[in-house]
Parts: sequence; C-alpha cells; structure tokens
Amino acid sequence: MDLVELERRARTVLTRDAYDYYAGGADDEVTVADNVAAWSRLRLRPHVLRDVSAVTTATTVLGTPVELPVLVAPMAYQRLATDAGEAATARAAAAAGTVMLVSTLATVSLEDVAAAAPQAPRWFQLYVHRDRGWTEELVRRAAAAGYRALVLTVDLPVLGYRPRDERNAFSLPDGLEMANVGRTTADTEDMSALRLYASQEMDAALTPADIDWLRGLVDLPVLVKGVLRGDDARLAVDAGAAGVIVSNHGGRQLDGAVSGADALPDVAAAVAGRAEVYVDGGVRRGTDVVKALALGARAVLVGRPLLWGLACGGEQGAVDVLDGLRAELARALALCGTPTPDDVTRDLIAP
Amino acid sequence: MDLVELERRARTVLTRDAYDYYAGGADDEVTVADNVAAWSRLRLRPHVLRDVSAVTTATTVLGTPVELPVLVAPMAYQRLATDAGEAATARAAAAAGTVMLVSTLATVSLEDVAAAAPQAPRWFQLYVHRDRGWTEELVRRAAAAGYRALVLTVDLPVLGYRPRDERNAFSLPDGLEMANVGRTTADTEDMSALRLYASQEMDAALTPADIDWLRGLVDLPVLVKGVLRGDDARLAVDAGAAGVIVSNHGGRQLDGAVSGADALPDVAAAVAGRAEVYVDGGVRRGTDVVKALALGARAVLVGRPLLWGLACGGEQGAVDVLDGLRAELARALALCGTPTPDDVTRDLIAP
Amino acid sequence: MDLVELERRARTVLTRDAYDYYAGGADDEVTVADNVAAWSRLRLRPHVLRDVSAVTTATTVLGTPVELPVLVAPMAYQRLATDAGEAATARAAAAAGTVMLVSTLATVSLEDVAAAAPQAPRWFQLYVHRDRGWTEELVRRAAAAGYRALVLTVDLPVLGYRPRDERNAFSLPDGLEMANVGRTTADTEDMSALRLYASQEMDAALTPADIDWLRGLVDLPVLVKGVLRGDDARLAVDAGAAGVIVSNHGGRQLDGAVSGADALPDVAAAVAGRAEVYVDGGVRRGTDVVKALALGARAVLVGRPLLWGLACGGEQGAVDVLDGLRAELARALALCGTPTPDDVTRDLIAP
Amino acid sequence: MDLVELERRARTVLTRDAYDYYAGGADDEVTVADNVAAWSRLRLRPHVLRDVSAVTTATTVLGTPVELPVLVAPMAYQRLATDAGEAATARAAAAAGTVMLVSTLATVSLEDVAAAAPQAPRWFQLYVHRDRGWTEELVRRAAAAGYRALVLTVDLPVLGYRPRDERNAFSLPDGLEMANVGRTTADTEDMSALRLYASQEMDAALTPADIDWLRGLVDLPVLVKGVLRGDDARLAVDAGAAGVIVSNHGGRQLDGAVSGADALPDVAAAVAGRAEVYVDGGVRRGTDVVKALALGARAVLVGRPLLWGLACGGEQGAVDVLDGLRAELARALALCGTPTPDDVTRDLIAP
Repeated sequence: MDLVELERRARTVLTRDAYDYYAGGADDEVTVADNVAAWSRLRLRPHVLRDVSAVTTATTVLGTPVELPVLVAPMAYQRLATDAGEAATARAAAAAGTVMLVSTLATVSLEDVAAAAPQAPRWFQLYVHRDRGWTEELVRRAAAAGYRALVLTVDLPVLGYRPRDERNAFSLPDGLEMANVGRTTADTEDMSALRLYASQEMDAALTPADIDWLRGLVDLPVLVKGVLRGDDARLAVDAGAAGVIVSNHGGRQLDGAVSGADALPDVAAAVAGRAEVYVDGGVRRGTDVVKALALGARAVLVGRPLLWGLACGGEQGAVDVLDGLRAELARALALCGTPTPDDVTRDLIAP
Repeated sequence: MDLVELERRARTVLTRDAYDYYAGGADDEVTVADNVAAWSRLRLRPHVLRDVSAVTTATTVLGTPVELPVLVAPMAYQRLATDAGEAATARAAAAAGTVMLVSTLATVSLEDVAAAAPQAPRWFQLYVHRDRGWTEELVRRAAAAGYRALVLTVDLPVLGYRPRDERNAFSLPDGLEMANVGRTTADTEDMSALRLYASQEMDAALTPADIDWLRGLVDLPVLVKGVLRGDDARLAVDAGAAGVIVSNHGGRQLDGAVSGADALPDVAAAVAGRAEVYVDGGVRRGTDVVKALALGARAVLVGRPLLWGLACGGEQGAVDVLDGLRAELARALALCGTPTPDDVTRDLIAP
Repeated sequence: MDLVELERRARTVLTRDAYDYYAGGADDEVTVADNVAAWSRLRLRPHVLRDVSAVTTATTVLGTPVELPVLVAPMAYQRLATDAGEAATARAAAAAGTVMLVSTLATVSLEDVAAAAPQAPRWFQLYVHRDRGWTEELVRRAAAAGYRALVLTVDLPVLGYRPRDERNAFSLPDGLEMANVGRTTADTEDMSALRLYASQEMDAALTPADIDWLRGLVDLPVLVKGVLRGDDARLAVDAGAAGVIVSNHGGRQLDGAVSGADALPDVAAAVAGRAEVYVDGGVRRGTDVVKALALGARAVLVGRPLLWGLACGGEQGAVDVLDGLRAELARALALCGTPTPDDVTRDLIAP
Repeated sequence: MDLVELERRARTVLTRDAYDYYAGGADDEVTVADNVAAWSRLRLRPHVLRDVSAVTTATTVLGTPVELPVLVAPMAYQRLATDAGEAATARAAAAAGTVMLVSTLATVSLEDVAAAAPQAPRWFQLYVHRDRGWTEELVRRAAAAGYRALVLTVDLPVLGYRPRDERNAFSLPDGLEMANVGRTTADTEDMSALRLYASQEMDAALTPADIDWLRGLVDLPVLVKGVLRGDDARLAVDAGAAGVIVSNHGGRQLDGAVSGADALPDVAAAVAGRAEVYVDGGVRRGTDVVKALALGARAVLVGRPLLWGLACGGEQGAVDVLDGLRAELARALALCGTPTPDDVTRDLIAP
C-alpha cells in the first residue's frame, strides 16, 4: 500500500480546488509535513522469539469491537472525492470492520450515511454552532440515527488560514451542500467560503462545561477531539469525556502546533487510563499504527488516505486503504513480536 | 499574508543595491537565516476548551496602549523603499495603532517623521556618535519632537561586514541623505559607505554608564537594543534601562550570533520582570509573535517585512503588513486558547 | 575500496529483478538508509602516540581464528549474482581467511558449498520451517557437512513487504532453485514469490525453547540472528545461545526498526560478556568495523557489498571486497592507535 | 574575505592533481566537511556595553608575540601552488606578523625558507622517519636554522587513504622535490606516491618517550600535533610537551574522526593550563577564531585557505588571507565585546 503513490494518482483525478482543500493546511504547512515526519522519526525496537503464528489486529473502541485499531477520521465534503460521498465511506468502513466518524460538515446527511450501512458502528463529529438550539437538534438527530458516540471537536473556535483555499476562494461546487446544515457554502470572491461560514456560525466559547451540556442532551459517550496537552486532556476527562483524540486537525488549524505523535505521550500519561486516548495526523503505514499504540493510543484515525482511495476507486478504493493498513499492521505486529494490539508496550519505541 | 511572496515582489521593484542593503546580512548570512528558522523550529502546545469568542491583540508597551504587540523596528534609509520614506511608515504605524521606532539614520528628519503622524507614539533609536555634543543635541531634538522613549543601540561599535554592500560599494543615491545627520554618505569605490561612516563617527566605547548619561539628558525612558545575554541585560537594567530589546540586528552585525528566539529565554529570566523585554529578528507570522510572548517578550519588532510592504505598496503596503500580522496573531491567540497577549504563558512552547 | 561505486557498477551488470532483490528493503526503505547513516553519524576519537608498527586485523569468532573481524553474512540466491553462486563466495571467504554464513535459501546446496572450500570454517544459517522433521534433517545435513555453528534467524516469522519484489513479482529465474530445499520458488503473478513461500513454510512460533531444541539435535553452538534489544538478547543467552547477532535483516523486514549500530550498545551491555555479540547492516568502511568493535561487537557481518563484488568480478570480486575491508580496517586500527581488534574500546566513539 | 570564492578561483588556476591533493581528504571526506561545519554549528553570545574602541588581535604563542592568533599550518608541497613555494609563505607570514610552521615535506629546504624571512619566527614540523639518524640530523638542521620550536606530528603512523590522490596516482611533478628529504617522490602507477613514501619511511612506533628523545636532541620546545583526546593530551604534556595542537590533519587521515572544534573542549580541560593548546581544521572566518579561543585555544592554524591565496596571488595572496582574517577577527572581537584575545571566555559559546 503505497499511499504516497495513491495521493499522486488522486491528484490527477480531483479538481485542483478539491485536491487543495483535502491536501492543504494552515499557513506554511509546517505542521502538515511534521505530522508525517514525526512518525518516521521514531524507531522501533522489535521483540523476537515470541510466538506470532496467530496475529490479530482486532480490538475494541469504547467497547465496540473493530477489526483494526484504525478508525475513519471525520472529514468534510467527501462528495468532492466520489459521487456517493460519505455513504461510500460508510459502506467501506463497514466492510473493513471499523468505525466511521461522520462530520457535521458531511455532504450526505447523517441519516443517509446511517442508512448506507445500517449495522455498522458510527460516531458523530460535532461542531457546536452559536445557534445552540440547532446544535441540540443536530445532536438528537445523530442519536436517533443510531450514532454511538459524539466526537466534540474543540480545536476550531475559528478556522485556520489555509492559503490554498483562500487563493482558490474555495466553496462547494454546484450541486453539493453541507447536508446536515441544509445549505451550501456562500460564494466568495477572495476567501475560503468555509472560513467565512465558521466565523459566522461556529461557537468560539466552548469550555469543559459544554461536555456536561452535551452529555445531558443524549445518552451517548462524548469524545473530545483536538487535544494536544496533558492538562487539557485531564480537564476534559474530569468533565466526563469518555475519550480524548490527540489531533492538530491535520495541520489545518494552528501551523506550528506540535504533531500528534509528539503530543501523545504527554496526553496518555495525564489521562492515565481514565479514558481512551486516540491520535490522528500523518499515519501512513502499519508501523505508524504500532508506534501510536506504543505511545498510548487505543487506536488511530486516518483521514486523507481514505480521500485518495475514494477519489481513485470510490467505495472500493477506501476499502483497499483500510485493508492495506490492516495487512501492514498485522505484518508489523508479527515482526514486533506483539501478536495483538494489547501486547504493544511503550518500550517498543527507541528512546 | 505571505511575506515570502511579498519579499519576492519587492525584489523586482527595488534596485539591486537597495534590495541587497535591506535583505543582506553579515558574512555568510548564517544568522540572517537562523533568525527565521529559530521561530519555525519551535512547536506550540495550544490550549482548547477555553472561551476565545472575544480575542484582543491589544496590549501596552512602556505603558502606551498599542493595538498589537508588534512594533516597527528602527530601520535606516526608508526612502530607498518609497519616496515618502519614514513619513509613510509613521502614518502606517499610526493607522495600525502601534509604535514606530525611528532610526538615527532615517532619510526623513525626526521632526518631519513626527509631523507626519503627530498623535502617534514614537520612540527614537539612537546611535551614540563620538561627537557627544552633537549626540546630545540629537537627543534633545527627539525629546522636543515628542518622542516618548530613547532606544539605545548597543550592538554596533563597528559595522558588520556585509558582503552585498561591499560588493555594491553601496552608498545613498543622489537626492537621499541621512536627514538627522544632515549629510549624505560618502561616495566610496570599494566598500560600504555606511561602514566607512560608522568607523569614523560611531562611538565604540559605550558602557552601562552611558545609560545614566542619557537619562540625565532628557526625561525619557531608555531601552537598550542589541542584547543577547542575560548578564548584559541585568547590567542594563541595573543601570536604569526601562526595557531591553533582544536582537542581533537582523543578522547584520555578528554572523553566527545566537538568534533572538534562542536568546530570549535567558534574557527574560535574568530581567525577571524588572523591565520590559522585546525581541526582533525573523518574525514572519502571527504564530511567531505568540512564541515570542510565550518566551517572555512584551512585544516584537518587525523590520524587513515592512520594507517589502513599503516597496510594493507605499504607506498602504506597510499598513497591510501590520494588519496582516494582527489578523494572524488574533487567529493564533484564538487557536492557542489565549484570548489576550497576557494569557500567553511559557508552557505554550513544547520542550 | 569505494563500495558505492561498486554498487553502481553492479547495478549495470545485474538484471533489474536481481538488483532490486539484493538492494531493496521493506516499505519505504527508511531502515535500509538508516543502517548506513547510523555508522556515519558516529565520530571517532583516535589515540595517538601508541606503537602501531605491527597491526593485525586477526581475531577469533567462537574460538575460530579469522584474518579479519568481518564475516560473510548469510544471503539467499547468490547465483543471481554469479553463476557459481555460493560456491564462489565460499572460495572467496576461504581466500580472505574468514567465516562464511551459508543461507538456508542458498542456490547451491550446503554440501556443495562445503565441497567448494573444504578446509574453511563455515556456519549454517537456519530458517526453521513448520515442517520440523525436514528442518531437523537440514540441521543434521549441515552438521554432517562440517558446518561449525548454527545461526538461527529469528526476525522472519513473516517476510517483510518489499515493494520492489512485489512490483517485479520476483521469483527465481529458470534454472535456479533453492538448493537446500530442493525446489524453485513458485511463479507468482502479483507478489513476491519468496513472501508466498515464507507465509506457507516458515515457522512463526519460535521461542527461546527452540534454541534448546536445536542444541539437542546436533553438537554445535547456536547463534541467534536478528536481535535488536538487550532483554531479548539476555533471553537468548539464558536459553543457551553462544552468540547473538544484532541485525534488522538489512532493513528488509521491519521498516523503521532501529539500526544495528544504534541497537548494539544495549545488546552488548545486556549480554555482558556471557556470549559473543555480532552486528550487521550498513557496514561499508573499515572505520565502520572499528566503530562496531568499539560498541561491543566481536565482528561484523557484511552482505550486499559482497553481492556487488560477485556481480562485478565473481569469486575474485568478493575476495577484493574482503581484502579491501581488511586493508581499510588495518589502516583504521593504526590511525586509532589500536593495533589489534582487542585494543578497541568503547571510548573511541565520541559521546 | 570570501574564502569559498577564493577556493573556487584557485581551482581554476591549479592543476587537477594539485587541487585534489590540497583539497582532498580521507575516504568519503566526511571529516573534511565536518571540520568546516562544526564551527558553523556553534552560536556566539556576544557581550555589549563594553568599551571596544581599542581592539587588538595581538597575542603571544609560546612567548613569541604575534599580530594575530592565527598561525600558518604546516603544509607539504607548496611549490605546487606558487613557484616560490614555502619561501613565499615565509615572507607572507612575516609580513602578517605571525608564525609559520614549516613542513618536513616542504618543497623548499628548511634553510632556504629561513633565509627568505630571516627575522620572522618559525617552527619546524617534524615527521619522525624510521631512519632515526637522519631524523636527528633534520632536527639539528632546524635548530641551526633558527627554528624556535618543534612540532611533532603524531597522527600519521600511516598515510590516510585519499581517493583523489590514489585515482590520480599523484606524485610530485618534474622539477619539484621534497627538499628537506633531498629527493622526489617515486613515480607510481596506481597509488599515491606519498602513501608509498610514508609506508616505507615514516615511523609508526612513536610513543610519549619520543617527546623526551626530541627534547634531548636540541634545546627547543616541542609541540605535539594531531591530538583529539584529553587523555592523550595529558600524556603528551606529562612527557614534556610545551603545547598540543588539536587536529585531525585536515580530514586527510582518519575519516570519521571528530572535528577539531568538537574535540577542543575535552583537550583544553585535560591540559588545564599546563601547556598551550592550539587547534586547526575548517577555520574560515574571524568568528571561527573567536570560537576557538572561547573553547580554550591559544591560537588556530590555518592551512588550505593560504594555499588558495598562494595559488591566486602568490606571496601577496597569502598575505591577503592572513590580513583578511586579522580584520575579520578584529571586527568579531569588537562585536563580541572582547577587545583582546585574552578577554574571550568560554561562555561566549551558546550551550
């Protein structure tokens, strides 16, 4: 599974605007690059002389069995990649046996995504809007549609400045809309339409108290996504979060933010097992997944590679990415002498 | 605000001599490059789940309110960039709501700079000349013209060797003069005219006692600019300095000198709140400003980017640079969970 | 001896498939590159004012005298490089006065390799197959043919994914076979034939108990090859291993695994003299050998460079590589003030 | 003084063989490059607010006054660069007010070098040959010719392998000879003639006792050149050395050896003021000289840049290099707030 090559192919398939929206990041894209590099800098110290004749990549996330500790990151606007959009992704995640995180900014409604793969586990990623009534309604819709957890994104009080989208004055093309919101983005002349939307609609005043508020709305566990510090993670868990997702939003928000790989140990130590810890950003290989597990993650989220899979091969393309990562992870677990995700320990990483 | 792109455009607008004078540095320009790289090497650990619905970049410098903790660095010869020179910069700084530091080597007289934006706060950057009588007169002129502080530059006992200016035998073109000094630079055949001037006129014997001397001349606070060590900063504050500016003169004096970003923590620790600490060199992004605040700076000084702004767009070009940095800083503060400059703390920087 | 230049020439001589099989590694080949780079990063602190008029590179390995502490690494498929294959290598090793490690996957039978240089010392590298009866027979054949030690490879429970071989659907060309196994590899359409073979035949359940089992079969010392951690090395020695070979299989198994150079100190400290320690991976210069000795190795194994020698010059080409390394090592020992391998100590390496 | 540009020009003036002999180093030339890079990696923490109106670069070496702490390194074969060879260098060193170290392998006899600048201080660099009688005679000739110290080179028991010279089968061209030895190098077909000479003639059995032996021959102080470790330096000083020169022979002997800049602190600490410490290798700027002084050197030796000066401008070219370094050093001392070499302290270097 050569994801660099897959991205190269996707670039030829997608419009310039769409490719830039998916691939780009904030400012100088220092963090975009560092996310990938941070995993590569780590070195593994594999065990030998351990029976690895029976390897499994299966684990659980919040108690839900998954075939591999790789979840589908919440990503907006998936119909830019393939016509069926988030519905295709939902079927791919189901086929691969993992959880899809569905974005508030999906181009297929959360109900239609659910209907595309009714039996599969799914979590709903939430951007709290200033209109709290509408936000509450959205949360209730997700619960009603069978979503099993809420993933509260906390690193987007304002949208990061993404030079590619600004230059492209990027907005959704005709025929696509933010289906959960029920409208398309504005046509803009000289800025990112999403940045305009975020500045008008998103709530920049979230605090730990909002975790409580969310938990009061529906009976679903809440994960907090976008944490890069142990102290913040502890606050979130104290406020009732069932999980914390270490993330810098794919390098799309604060350029210069620490990578997920580098932030993970601090968060894992602070959480100390009181909640599950996840990480995203730059995961491109099965060995990256092993490194994430070693540093304290329950699972990783993968984003852009699935978009490249969707762009090049639709639903099957996304399945291929997940299956490829599963095969790589199984091989990496065998070669590390750790036949299950639970066997992976901190000292697999060289100091 | 892509300042790299802005510099590229400025390079096409300016004469070779002028561009080289502005862009160049000492010897191999190792420190010029390191100034920018040092900020980029630092990684941020942003906070989340904090109310950042009301962000402000406003702060005070020596008690003077400014709209952003970004001051205009003292730069010589601004009429090389735009015809109105320092007068344009003064109007730009006033429009952006910040303090301009006016150079002894300005190409517009300090009185004319003051007249260009009479209400705005302004500090006078002083090169002490061997002719102490003339220097004293210059200081009194600055006080009379309403300048609110003296910025004593201490890192130029001799001028650094700047290969570009030597190769160009750079001197001021016809029609421009060092307006405070009241004369143009000499025509030279094979060296920098400014280096010749400095070797003949500048005082290489400054000591902390000269801070006392300056304070006795006029009733203005004195800042010391060009400090890169904690022990020197302490001496300056002991001698009565109200502020210390961590600076390697934009890499134009001692090549191989430590960058401002790397020197700042030592200076801030030594000063320990007894005076205000500033830093310059290589600041190109709002996130760089956050990093400087985190490491102990009250504000940063920005230099070359304003020259590129002046060259490409005159006064408005300089306003655009300052406004761009303010917008970036506001976004960075929001994304760091620190709604005001005072909220920024040391631990925002990853160890 | 410029081994980079030698590889360049070999590349023009070999088929693309063969060159890729020899040169390639797992996934992104990060570890392939790091193996070489890790030695280069180390700096030597040579001694002076020591009598080095009589330098010797001679030493012993498991009590067997060798002319230099450089052994021939076990490598599969040597007839891809030169028609006589492993027989040529055996004669070259004998001529150079060192030990050849003969691979289970040789393209000349272990008996024919032995016959090619009957007097020379030789160790047999063993892949334990699931068919333990056949494996036992293989071990007895090696003992009967005069091999003096068994080298148990423990880092190949599954074959690493090697993109070059997968792309080439690499299998042995007509006329070549795995001579010890008595068959050729399968023809495959879209994967490495060796990976298919390994997945079907190799035993992924090895534990320290298998070292005991091996020692019970024949009266030969057992070395364990593929160890990268001190704790694993200690387990192997506790189970009766006479030696441990620090190796990541030339970067061909787990990409991102720590280099031999970086793993060696931990292993040497854990073994603490209870067994001999060897290392392979990236050794290209006599100074690399000195570095390995300084970090605790008894000797190094060299692999790919011998294949380039075989490809460019057959048996004599391999002799030239070994003689070249011996000359470089002798010079390096003289320049380090350490006239024999035993004089090399840890503090030759700069901290 | 742009020494990189000067080398570029010298390359066009010199024969390929001569340029390669001067510029080249051992094996992969890792240490050649690291010598220069090691100084560049260091960062300076200059002092300000110190009176530097009177700067001097003058100092003493072994009690001899010199105008600058930059000596002329001993270099063989200077007539390859300019017809007058070492005589030109002697006049240049005298003009610049510093000490020349004259090589055993000079192409002008030590007596003729002395006659070229009779009043100037000069040290004789000694390679001890196996023929001790001849070596003794050479030492007595140096004393008789007024040389003031012996510089015993200890890092050349054998000659390093220098690929450029081997490829060129480099030997002295017709008309040039090793004038002290009284003969030319052999014509060789496929190796460096100097390596052949060294292997036949040089003594590889030097020990600290030979320092005693040398001191008994003539009444001159002995410096030991080629030390890279504190323990060796201490042995040399215990044996009576008046000085130690930290050097890896310009990267020409042991590739991968630590740079002079990186080895200097350990040596300076071990010697602890009991002898003078010098350093060479990669010094290209006045700021490099300051760094060397800060790390404990009394002075530096400069080599290759003088050859480029000789090649481009003969005697005057060498004077220009020394004068250029003196001017750079004076400027660097002023900008560091350290008006004399003795004012330079360890903490000028950033940790």
